Amino acid sequence: MAFMDDDYLLTTDLAKELFHTYAEPMPIVDYHCHLHPEEIYRDPNFSNIVEAWLTDGNNYGDHYKWRLERANGVPEELITGNGDPWDKFLAYAQTMEKAIGSPVYMWTHQELRRYFGITEVLNAKSAKAIYEQTNEMLATPEFSRRALLRRMNLDIICTTDDPLDSLEYHEAFEREGGDTFRMIPAMRPDTALNPGKAGFPEWIDRLEGLTGITVTSFDDMLAAIAKRVEFFHERGSRLSDHAADLLTYAESTTQERDRILDKARTGEPLDAQELSQYRTALLLGLMRVYREKGWTMQLHIHAMRNMNEREFAIHGADTGYDALNDRPIAEPLAALLNEAAKTDSIPRLLIYSLNPNDYMPIITVLGCFQGGMKQRLALGNAWWFNDTRTGIRRQLQTMAEGSLLGNFVGMTTDSRSFLSFPRHEFFRRILCELLGEWASRGEIPSDVDTLAPLVQDVSYDNARALFD
Amino acid sequence: MAFMDDDYLLTTDLAKELFHTYAEPMPIVDYHCHLHPEEIYRDPNFSNIVEAWLTDGNNYGDHYKWRLERANGVPEELITGNGDPWDKFLAYAQTMEKAIGSPVYMWTHQELRRYFGITEVLNAKSAKAIYEQTNEMLATPEFSRRALLRRMNLDIICTTDDPLDSLEYHEAFEREGGDTFRMIPAMRPDTALNPGKAGFPEWIDRLEGLTGITVTSFDDMLAAIAKRVEFFHERGSRLSDHAADLLTYAESTTQERDRILDKARTGEPLDAQELSQYRTALLLGLMRVYREKGWTMQLHIHAMRNMNEREFAIHGADTGYDALNDRPIAEPLAALLNEAAKTDSIPRLLIYSLNPNDYMPIITVLGCFQGGMKQRLALGNAWWFNDTRTGIRRQLQTMAEGSLLGNFVGMTTDSRSFLSFPRHEFFRRILCELLGEWASRGEIPSDVDTLAPLVQDVSYDNARALFD
Amino acid sequence: MAFMDDDYLLTTDLAKELFHTYAEPMPIVDYHCHLHPEEIYRDPNFSNIVEAWLTDGNNYGDHYKWRLERANGVPEELITGNGDPWDKFLAYAQTMEKAIGSPVYMWTHQELRRYFGITEVLNAKSAKAIYEQTNEMLATPEFSRRALLRRMNLDIICTTDDPLDSLEYHEAFEREGGDTFRMIPAMRPDTALNPGKAGFPEWIDRLEGLTGITVTSFDDMLAAIAKRVEFFHERGSRLSDHAADLLTYAESTTQERDRILDKARTGEPLDAQELSQYRTALLLGLMRVYREKGWTMQLHIHAMRNMNEREFAIHGADTGYDALNDRPIAEPLAALLNEAAKTDSIPRLLIYSLNPNDYMPIITVLGCFQGGMKQRLALGNAWWFNDTRTGIRRQLQTMAEGSLLGNFVGMTTDSRSFLSFPRHEFFRRILCELLGEWASRGEIPSDVDTLAPLVQDVSYDNARALFD
Repeated sequence: MAFMDDDYLLTTDLAKELFHTYAEPMPIVDYHCHLHPEEIYRDPNFSNIVEAWLTDGNNYGDHYKWRLERANGVPEELITGNGDPWDKFLAYAQTMEKAIGSPVYMWTHQELRRYFGITEVLNAKSAKAIYEQTNEMLATPEFSRRALLRRMNLDIICTTDDPLDSLEYHEAFEREGGDTFRMIPAMRPDTALNPGKAGFPEWIDRLEGLTGITVTSFDDMLAAIAKRVEFFHERGSRLSDHAADLLTYAESTTQERDRILDKARTGEPLDAQELSQYRTALLLGLMRVYREKGWTMQLHIHAMRNMNEREFAIHGADTGYDALNDRPIAEPLAALLNEAAKTDSIPRLLIYSLNPNDYMPIITVLGCFQGGMKQRLALGNAWWFNDTRTGIRRQLQTMAEGSLLGNFVGMTTDSRSFLSFPRHEFFRRILCELLGEWASRGEIPSDVDTLAPLVQDVSYDNARALFD
Repeated sequence: MAFMDDDYLLTTDLAKELFHTYAEPMPIVDYHCHLHPEEIYRDPNFSNIVEAWLTDGNNYGDHYKWRLERANGVPEELITGNGDPWDKFLAYAQTMEKAIGSPVYMWTHQELRRYFGITEVLNAKSAKAIYEQTNEMLATPEFSRRALLRRMNLDIICTTDDPLDSLEYHEAFEREGGDTFRMIPAMRPDTALNPGKAGFPEWIDRLEGLTGITVTSFDDMLAAIAKRVEFFHERGSRLSDHAADLLTYAESTTQERDRILDKARTGEPLDAQELSQYRTALLLGLMRVYREKGWTMQLHIHAMRNMNEREFAIHGADTGYDALNDRPIAEPLAALLNEAAKTDSIPRLLIYSLNPNDYMPIITVLGCFQGGMKQRLALGNAWWFNDTRTGIRRQLQTMAEGSLLGNFVGMTTDSRSFLSFPRHEFFRRILCELLGEWASRGEIPSDVDTLAPLVQDVSYDNARALFD
Repeated sequence: MAFMDDDYLLTTDLAKELFHTYAEPMPIVDYHCHLHPEEIYRDPNFSNIVEAWLTDGNNYGDHYKWRLERANGVPEELITGNGDPWDKFLAYAQTMEKAIGSPVYMWTHQELRRYFGITEVLNAKSAKAIYEQTNEMLATPEFSRRALLRRMNLDIICTTDDPLDSLEYHEAFEREGGDTFRMIPAMRPDTALNPGKAGFPEWIDRLEGLTGITVTSFDDMLAAIAKRVEFFHERGSRLSDHAADLLTYAESTTQERDRILDKARTGEPLDAQELSQYRTALLLGLMRVYREKGWTMQLHIHAMRNMNEREFAIHGADTGYDALNDRPIAEPLAALLNEAAKTDSIPRLLIYSLNPNDYMPIITVLGCFQGGMKQRLALGNAWWFNDTRTGIRRQLQTMAEGSLLGNFVGMTTDSRSFLSFPRHEFFRRILCELLGEWASRGEIPSDVDTLAPLVQDVSYDNARALFD
């Protein structure tokens, strides 16, 4: 099959039919990503392909690509530094020559095709022409940030916002007529979850100010956050997200929680046990709040962030120095859910782990807490380092074998790149490929009437229903 | 290929020949399952398909299916509760619509075909007709419990019995002429392994009464259990089984063991170290006993049971609230076997882990203790949540790549359902599929003379030989 | 496809072209193996196929095969004991009948073909003729140890040598004109890494003698080892290797390190914390040394060795009683690399884990420390129990999806057998199979101009460049 053929990844006739007739035309709900609401609201063009694809020169850009360039020995000047844009682009093109089999290789070429209509393979030889053509196109109105999103048949995009965010850009976006898609905030209270980190005391102060609630206890803090949940809810928000990198479980008394919060507000260091008690209590409290509002809670676990202190000092967070953790997860996750289940306060919950070895433990733990609503708990889609054919198949297979694939809410880019939306296509192809394979072995009906609704549900309808 | 085609999962001509000519006709030895000897002995019919397939209304039934229904938001009343049987069946049929890719989906349709000759796909539309037809058939003598077993070409079935069980139904079954298959007890001394649980002191009291051995020491207890092993052995038993959910290793002195047993008998709580010492010593002691009798010992590890306390309080054990554990296993398992090896007291041993990530650690640890008999240690078949095409392939591949596939004892249902025996067919298809694939790539001879004996050994002969 | 067909494992036309035209003709660089330099230098013939393949009667031989024989219940007398050679060979042939799907099965038949031209399947029936033919051929000059190596188109072989080794056989080999291949030492300072083991004090004494450096501190020891690195470097060495079975991380002060070394030299036992501090410091120190010399460091982790004490007492190390460990690795590995990164002292580094579940944690951790040179860190090839089609595919896929496949240094036998070199062919076939599969699904260009350089780089050029 030709590279990136119209039928790429579609290895059976059934897969082709399911994809082209049912999956491909569905709109996109990207219920978790990291695009900036201000950029979407203001809708500027990118200066060039380097800014759009690699870096804007401010330690902001696509760290997936940076990691590959670093692996290829590209000098940092041409990655996050002040190098010439063309030199940067060439360095990336040279890296691609070594990246056969990488998802980034596939995405790179898929994006060249879907946005720019360029079908050539990117390498040192083709780089110049591609550089010039993409830059030229990016300068036109058809390549503004929103235009890029519109082209992807986007229905809803969720940004990732601090509970204290004013949501001013969401409001302005709406007020000024919106677009062909909706931009909805999603809450990420990570600062609240990290009482040991700089900025925590100020964050609580601001929380008090914004909500008018004086925080004298852990429960006050929770009540104040709940008020922000309400604020978000009124602006359409229906999801939250949490980086619970290392999920632990520890019980605590009201007194202990209040004391821990006091310590954190005065900048006293917390020990591991206190941190675990605090986080456990906050997650349990948030679950109750989300459950009451009918929200979907997302937990991202087993990321290990900013592992290279030397580079962290230079670049800060989210610059390509993250890995996955491989500690046991089954016991703490089960303990957390068990506690929440006692008061029937498990919201609709998506659990993402960065470690694919966790998929089986997680899906079996989730199975112990299902009930009372359709697919209360699910394994989140294949996240970050798992956003590959291997990873997506593993996630789909785990959902299918360990729960109900037909209820899966499907793909999300979780991306910082405006050009990342063809990953939904990538996901849908893999879904159809897998269904086609199963049918070709007689494991499932090879019957479009049976499979098309599943394809449409997983591609779009189930995610859309999160906002009902 | 049509859904559940005669050749389903048989993706090569070689696979088809191996399955249809060699695997399919072999009888079944189900050396580990949870059917009740009394039910087999008394041989009643099922009242209806709901009782046979889903629940008998007494928190007893097929928790694989219950988990899927809960994931689909089916009210508990229609799962384990007092709901109308037809409503229950319909709820299950609706759940199946979402379960594409689940092994339960495959089993459901395989069972409809093999027992009832129904080839329709089960969904909300087809449910009524299927409900009526199966209920009608289940009322006939051809659908009594034993008739269902006979139809599967069953040779031997092992029940799972407490060491104190009188085995009265096994004896009555034999006395009254048996059937076309043998029903053999297998010992599961789980109560002995759990000195902290309610009922332990009474169990020891009853053990004393039955054996006439006064238990004043740990070694007395072991001697008394050994007497029960002898009792089982005389009634044909050749296997035991143990839920060593969390396998740990801790040494102890005779004095310590005796003191721990004393504490347990008087209901004093044991700490984690004492529990580990007790269990280690008991497992080592049992290994010696089994080794002497030529028994096969089964260890089921890394299940995490009854994780949802709220539901456990309502439903009790084995009702769908179990998950898998992901703690390290290599070191404690190796320590246990190393200790047993010192006195040459490792019996034939099958190790099942619920966590498929354990397959590689386990197979390599087992490899350190082989010798002295054909395949003294083996990885047990893909268990419970792994009883899927993915899981079975992974288990077979691990046995093949890490030990000797030709010596594998093959499939067991480990099931509570009288209708679960087509899973042997499922397993055999996957075995033949895999051999066909290997041959199609030139990795193994595509020669029936070489492969047919292996297929027959793994399908039946090796399991049958456990009883020689 | 016929068994071991010319095209075996090559499931697409592209795979066939890539393998036969590009991979197959490349020479071999075996940059890590356990062949004895003296044997290569002296170049004797093997007495018979049993000595060449199974055992030389001195607890030395192919423990991969021994494990399978033990699993088949072969008496130890016919494995490592004094049994008759023909009986030994027959026992092995009988074991092969059960080993369908094992990599040893494939290697066995590949070696019969590549070295002896024997295409028959080895089993009890064919054993006698194969035994006689191989023995006859092994007596001829075309089957001397070096002749076997030459036949494999060997370019470079690295032996594994203690830092204190005189390298006399390497020097004599060179002095007497060498051969068609180079024999280069590689350093394995395992004794230095194990201060608790017998022989450590004497090893340090000898290190002092050889280098003229009086070791009064930890830094002295490091300086002395650095001198041996220099000695090896002058003799062509460019790689080192370390069995860091259980990788842990612990900081220490200069004073602590010196005190630990003192204790170790006087035979005082070290506790786990001291051992971890010592090893951490030594690995960090060695990294600096290798970094300065431009060496490639290899770390072999998560082996669990000599698990069966009873057999270890009889047979000693490397006799088939090893397994893999399944402890978490991400945190200690990241901590070690983070510390080294602070002083820019990470050398080119290959990390092998015996546990394939570690591949994802490791590749993502390595990604945090890339930069400054082409592929500073990489996942080592599929090691030992992973040296199977399953394992090799998993390793290649992890490198491809998590870093840059095009920079991978490829296969190494890591073997004690002179007949193991067709494993490079095995590896290259699997590489080409995978590329062919990807292309057949449209994931990568199915373009030989794009793929052939990658195939050649991974088969040979990248490994060759380690010696530039």
